[in-house]
Amino acid sequence: MHPNFISHLRKYISLTDKEISILLNYIQPITLKKKAYLLEEGQTCKSNYFVERGCLRMFYINDKGTEQITHFALENWWIADYMSLIMQTPSQFYIQAIENSEIIALNHHKQEELFKQLPQLERYFRIMMQRVYAAAQMRVKYFHDYSKEENYRVFIGLFPDFAQRIPQYMLARVFE
Amino acid sequence: MHPNFISHLRKYISLTDKEISILLNYIQPITLKKKAYLLEEGQTCKSNYFVERGCLRMFYINDKGTEQITHFALENWWIADYMSLIMQTPSQFYIQAIENSEIIALNHHKQEELFKQLPQLERYFRIMMQRVYAAAQMRVKYFHDYSKEENYRVFIGLFPDFAQRIPQYMLARVFE
Repeated sequence: MHPNFISHLRKYISLTDKEISILLNYIQPITLKKKAYLLEEGQTCKSNYFVERGCLRMFYINDKGTEQITHFALENWWIADYMSLIMQTPSQFYIQAIENSEIIALNHHKQEELFKQLPQLERYFRIMMQRVYAAAQMRVKYFHDYSKEENYRVFIGLFPDFAQRIPQYMLARVFE
Repeated sequence: MHPNFISHLRKYISLTDKEISILLNYIQPITLKKKAYLLEEGQTCKSNYFVERGCLRMFYINDKGTEQITHFALENWWIADYMSLIMQTPSQFYIQAIENSEIIALNHHKQEELFKQLPQLERYFRIMMQRVYAAAQMRVKYFHDYSKEENYRVFIGLFPDFAQRIPQYMLARVFE
């Protein structure tokens, strides 16, 4: 059950089979049809979401009424509106499937109890968070350094998987 | 010794006095004069830096030869070029004191050994990283949503401490 998820965890931390079965009691598998939502503006982000299969995008509706995409998540990535998740305040974002997707949700309120039982998960998420933050720091630099077109090309170069999976018009919108 | 640092840690995790003394063996206090550097372009970022007193800025030199500031750190904040730190590759950034500062450095190579002895630090850094990443997600939205002037005003509203401590010309440069 959830082989991608388990093997991703085991790349970073040790988990016995018994610990895996504890973990599985705390997570919720979600099957999402293409275009279905995990989060909509005004809702509080309840979970951290892991992509087992498929692809998600995170966006918000800007002043002009158009969708501004800020993040994508492919297999083995976590995605959430972390401000909404941490503060338990309404989100300004949407999280939507852009392919049929298999998702694992880790509920914010259950997380603390789970971490008490399996404290090595603190390490796993410390590594995950450090990694996405490192990428976010580089993104600030790219934002300043490159034009929209250059940013798009740099991104495609860094993440060729995305270019193959995500419609070009959608990808281009990240850099608008 | 290091009361700010210890009390910041104890806000998030339990540490006995004995554990504190273990921790203190792993960190390195650094006294920085205003304008001194912790990191320069081309060097590998060796440590994660905690500001006990003072203020740091992180910037890079852009194509036009001007300093583009990307991050500030005041008391109780951690700062590093996390991509350089994680990958142990040369940094594209500078980290510089903008006031006389007292810094605590946690060396990347010592960190793993320390975390083995005090695994609750994984939790502390998971929370720290999650928090800065949450802010980084919002920053992407602000970048898109607001003009440079609006972004500056939003930032001052969110972080009034910065406006009092950091020269205005320097703060304005973040949004250029």
